[in-house]
Amino acid sequence: MSAHPVKTLDSLPLNSVRITGGIWRERMNTNRRATLPYEYRCCEETGRFEALELKWKPGNPRRPHWFWDSDVAKWLEAVAYALQERHDPKIYKMGRRVADLIVSAQQPDGYIHSYFSQLDQEKKFTNLRDLHELYTAGHLIEAAVAWYEATGERDLLDALCRFADLIDRTFGPNPGQIRGYDGHQEIELALVRLYRVTSEKRYLDLARFFVDERGRSPCFFDAEAQARGEKPKYEHAYCQAHRPVRQQKTAEGHAVRAMYLYCAMADLAAETGDRALRKACRDLWDNVTQRRMYAHGGVGSSAQGERFTVDYDLPNEAAYAESCAAIGLVFWAERMLRMERDGRYADVLERALYNNVLASVSRSGAKFFYANPLAVSAHFRNGHGDHVRPTRQPWFWCACCPPNIARILASLPRYIYATEPQAVWVHLYMPSRAEFTCGGVPVSIEQRTEYPWAGRVRIDVEPQRSAKFSVALRIPGWCRDAKLTLNGKSHAFTIKNGYARLSRVWQAGDRLVLDLVMPVEKVHAHPLVTENAGRVALQRGPVLYCFEQCDNGPNLDHITLPECVLPKPARIQNMGGHIVLVAKALQGGCEAWNGALYAVRASRFRAKRVRAIPYGLWGNRKPGEMRVWIRERI
Amino acid sequence: MSAHPVKTLDSLPLNSVRITGGIWRERMNTNRRATLPYEYRCCEETGRFEALELKWKPGNPRRPHWFWDSDVAKWLEAVAYALQERHDPKIYKMGRRVADLIVSAQQPDGYIHSYFSQLDQEKKFTNLRDLHELYTAGHLIEAAVAWYEATGERDLLDALCRFADLIDRTFGPNPGQIRGYDGHQEIELALVRLYRVTSEKRYLDLARFFVDERGRSPCFFDAEAQARGEKPKYEHAYCQAHRPVRQQKTAEGHAVRAMYLYCAMADLAAETGDRALRKACRDLWDNVTQRRMYAHGGVGSSAQGERFTVDYDLPNEAAYAESCAAIGLVFWAERMLRMERDGRYADVLERALYNNVLASVSRSGAKFFYANPLAVSAHFRNGHGDHVRPTRQPWFWCACCPPNIARILASLPRYIYATEPQAVWVHLYMPSRAEFTCGGVPVSIEQRTEYPWAGRVRIDVEPQRSAKFSVALRIPGWCRDAKLTLNGKSHAFTIKNGYARLSRVWQAGDRLVLDLVMPVEKVHAHPLVTENAGRVALQRGPVLYCFEQCDNGPNLDHITLPECVLPKPARIQNMGGHIVLVAKALQGGCEAWNGALYAVRASRFRAKRVRAIPYGLWGNRKPGEMRVWIRERI
Repeated sequence: MSAHPVKTLDSLPLNSVRITGGIWRERMNTNRRATLPYEYRCCEETGRFEALELKWKPGNPRRPHWFWDSDVAKWLEAVAYALQERHDPKIYKMGRRVADLIVSAQQPDGYIHSYFSQLDQEKKFTNLRDLHELYTAGHLIEAAVAWYEATGERDLLDALCRFADLIDRTFGPNPGQIRGYDGHQEIELALVRLYRVTSEKRYLDLARFFVDERGRSPCFFDAEAQARGEKPKYEHAYCQAHRPVRQQKTAEGHAVRAMYLYCAMADLAAETGDRALRKACRDLWDNVTQRRMYAHGGVGSSAQGERFTVDYDLPNEAAYAESCAAIGLVFWAERMLRMERDGRYADVLERALYNNVLASVSRSGAKFFYANPLAVSAHFRNGHGDHVRPTRQPWFWCACCPPNIARILASLPRYIYATEPQAVWVHLYMPSRAEFTCGGVPVSIEQRTEYPWAGRVRIDVEPQRSAKFSVALRIPGWCRDAKLTLNGKSHAFTIKNGYARLSRVWQAGDRLVLDLVMPVEKVHAHPLVTENAGRVALQRGPVLYCFEQCDNGPNLDHITLPECVLPKPARIQNMGGHIVLVAKALQGGCEAWNGALYAVRASRFRAKRVRAIPYGLWGNRKPGEMRVWIRERI
Repeated sequence: MSAHPVKTLDSLPLNSVRITGGIWRERMNTNRRATLPYEYRCCEETGRFEALELKWKPGNPRRPHWFWDSDVAKWLEAVAYALQERHDPKIYKMGRRVADLIVSAQQPDGYIHSYFSQLDQEKKFTNLRDLHELYTAGHLIEAAVAWYEATGERDLLDALCRFADLIDRTFGPNPGQIRGYDGHQEIELALVRLYRVTSEKRYLDLARFFVDERGRSPCFFDAEAQARGEKPKYEHAYCQAHRPVRQQKTAEGHAVRAMYLYCAMADLAAETGDRALRKACRDLWDNVTQRRMYAHGGVGSSAQGERFTVDYDLPNEAAYAESCAAIGLVFWAERMLRMERDGRYADVLERALYNNVLASVSRSGAKFFYANPLAVSAHFRNGHGDHVRPTRQPWFWCACCPPNIARILASLPRYIYATEPQAVWVHLYMPSRAEFTCGGVPVSIEQRTEYPWAGRVRIDVEPQRSAKFSVALRIPGWCRDAKLTLNGKSHAFTIKNGYARLSRVWQAGDRLVLDLVMPVEKVHAHPLVTENAGRVALQRGPVLYCFEQCDNGPNLDHITLPECVLPKPARIQNMGGHIVLVAKALQGGCEAWNGALYAVRASRFRAKRVRAIPYGLWGNRKPGEMRVWIRERI
């Protein structure tokens, strides 16, 4: 690979961007005040911190599990992001204690793993396929990088470098090394991150080794299973090991693993300029977003295996759409966006963020969805066929989602802006301020907006002195009519790859006002999504809507929206000032039936006022039915 | 209980009724020629016969299972019915061998059970809850009664009487007896049958004991579990033991167990005149048929637990609707019909028979459905959430359905007629002849009809000499316009409880012609069956229709039937002369989408000719999608 690295956009460090208001500010505040301390307690009470003391004894019911360290690491990573935004002694103290625990758990050879180090020493690195050993390592590395960036304290980073060095010695193509990789991807993207902060190229090479090995035939997992004395019975596609990654064109297997792999592939494509890898990323992106993604940005439709299935298989009620998978999609989209500079990546990022990710945590910050269905009927069955009504839970036995949600919320400012030497890119619209250098001068930028509830965004550009650079404003894919003024005067623009790019000499006091016309839209799904045949979903801007029983009464599938009716936006009390949609719809099937179960009867509708709320806010009131896709009458 | 027995209608013995043509004749022929020998081979090859030799040794992979004897018994019962219709040396020889095997497996104390007798002697009668010990006994008793009635050979019946005597000594309210009952009902109805053929009242009393004990609190199963040293963790409703049967008003738990229980309850209500029991039967009937039954007559909608769930929970694709449960519903309906003389029981019996039961076996007679879904989409998920396309299977590990299907097909003539001293009742219409005594004289009756493909039925009543009696002709619930002629002249009639009753002096050569007007009808489901909101099913006479991919192409849910369109009946080749339905419908969602997954687009329909076939015949051609309930455009 003699190609040059791709010149990607640069993220802004978290301490140079601040979200100043709106829905995400509210969520970040809740995340800091409620979620982070709450999850700390959960880790404490379940034994996840204690596990790192390596003192477990038989009889203690809090027996460490092999993926526990990843929960701790993701929580610590979230804490680090919160500290980057603003120092906070209480949170720092919790984080520092956990960093100490991790460092103290390190073995003389550099190894860190609370399960294997005390419960199964002999089995270290003997079952990469199932036991998440490098997955937890990857999360520890991410936490260490974030902690270092937030605090400047090197001890955890140094410890993880020692662990990474051990992994680098242990895995590789040379004699005496394990030529394999982990069943659950994460180490790959973490090593790229570690490389970026340490400039140690071995870490980048090791990430590439892991990515390149995956899918080689015969499969490492089969040899590994035989070495354990087991029959090599495994579906390789489950962890994307069915063929070399550069040949993969459809998203297969476990959705979170897929997302983390694709993140690493995008990272490596950018770092190495590997065109085949970049092409594979684009192919997989197209497959995911054009065939296998829910309207709320969720991916991985099947509860069995938490996985992708086949094109257009997107059941609403049985939807899995794990919160972690939507978060992984945001991670991947951000990497693709910085590499490809194309608004379609931002469109998906925004879709997942405002809908699936927003829904995954309660407004209180202490209850979480693991799966994110798009319908809950009176007879709800989840993807396993069980009649268990979906409600957000305070914690999970497999608790990957809560700390993942915490870390994406704590790092949200990362997704708003990006820069390159002569340009600043505005990807997302939300009240915020950022500081960076562009066109050779320090620049600050500030957005004031009610987005996503209104489409007007005021952007003040303040270079320290006049300078020439570009401002690239994203014109979202959902928007069909956008207007722009510069210093009060209408400003013509063209859209290229989803961005209006304004190149000029900027000076202090320049003000842009972007008006994104934001009508309510009735969306159809591709006809091969048969579950949605004859149905529409309501969307306004990036926000997908849903109907809840507490607003509309039971039997939501009796609601039918005539083609000629377009719901209207409205503000109501008790919804935090968010925009709801109201309409005069029809309600079918409400006649008296006199005990019959099947009968020849004329279908009749009666008028019914209905209300839809943002999907991201569902399930925060009285539990009941919910439905995104409602019947349309044509 | 000092009440008098209910004067029920009498069934006709199988050797005095013959189906002479039509769809059921064809199926009975296939059952005799193909299914019975085929299932004999299956039992042989899987070790079910060998098990009765009680010679299993470790190393033999065909280790007996505790419900195997029930499969053998149901097969033998089916053979006995086939022999009652017509002697057949080949089938007799197979049956006789199996009868010998059962007799030879009897222990000195009368006990018969191929699993416990050789594998777990110590555990006899220690886990009634789970191990089906009296369930297999019940099936053996039914087989013995049928074999005796078919052949006059008493040995098997005598053996089973000895077993019943052992059960009678073992179970009961007295000291030293087990005060309990079986987790899977069957012994109860079998004991009533044994009582009827032997006149031994102990058997009736024992059946009543078992039925009365069920649901007593504290639950026998809990004490039984504690005696085994297990925690009594069990959902009593699963086997209808949640409350005394007379207090049960909703059908709960495992559907086949429920049906067999309700059969026994109906039998006992009739034999004893127990009004509370009869009332409970009616309440349960109303709940099942007005809230928990599929349009094809299937019951037990949930794959988890093969069970009833809640009112109106009738998912189409995830439908379980076990073949045995529909067969059990037919058994129960027949008992209710003889007791209540009300056509609504015959309506359900006919619905289950022509649709769910007919579909449960292939036209070849050698492949079977266990579950009977009402829709198969491109992304089919069964009731467990698994992507396993439903196709009829050659056999099952738990093989309850195939021999149950064989025995109902072999005993079909039982359901057509019933008599009482001064009346003959015609419940079902099919080409057939019957002989019986009525009004004190031998009478023969003959039906000629193309039913269910046409509504005209010619009935010749031939008393040996003139005699006064009634002929009660069922006017099916689906029929809204029926005409009758007697000896060529229009004959007025009134309908009472679903029957037109003609009381007169009949003489040889009397001919009735009944015309049941049989339009195609578009059926709606009760609005609370939310899966069918906005959908219609097509029915004509007792036949429910479905759409198959091989007739209509893929994406069946794109088919939309305008309210103004009524499909027309047609005969086509390759469907065995059966009536199909054709219509000019609409097909939505077929536009080019240019790669988008979600978009704002106008919905458009194009005209499409569609064809529906009888549900009972689906899945006999090229596998693909199937759908009963299609979208309606109003």
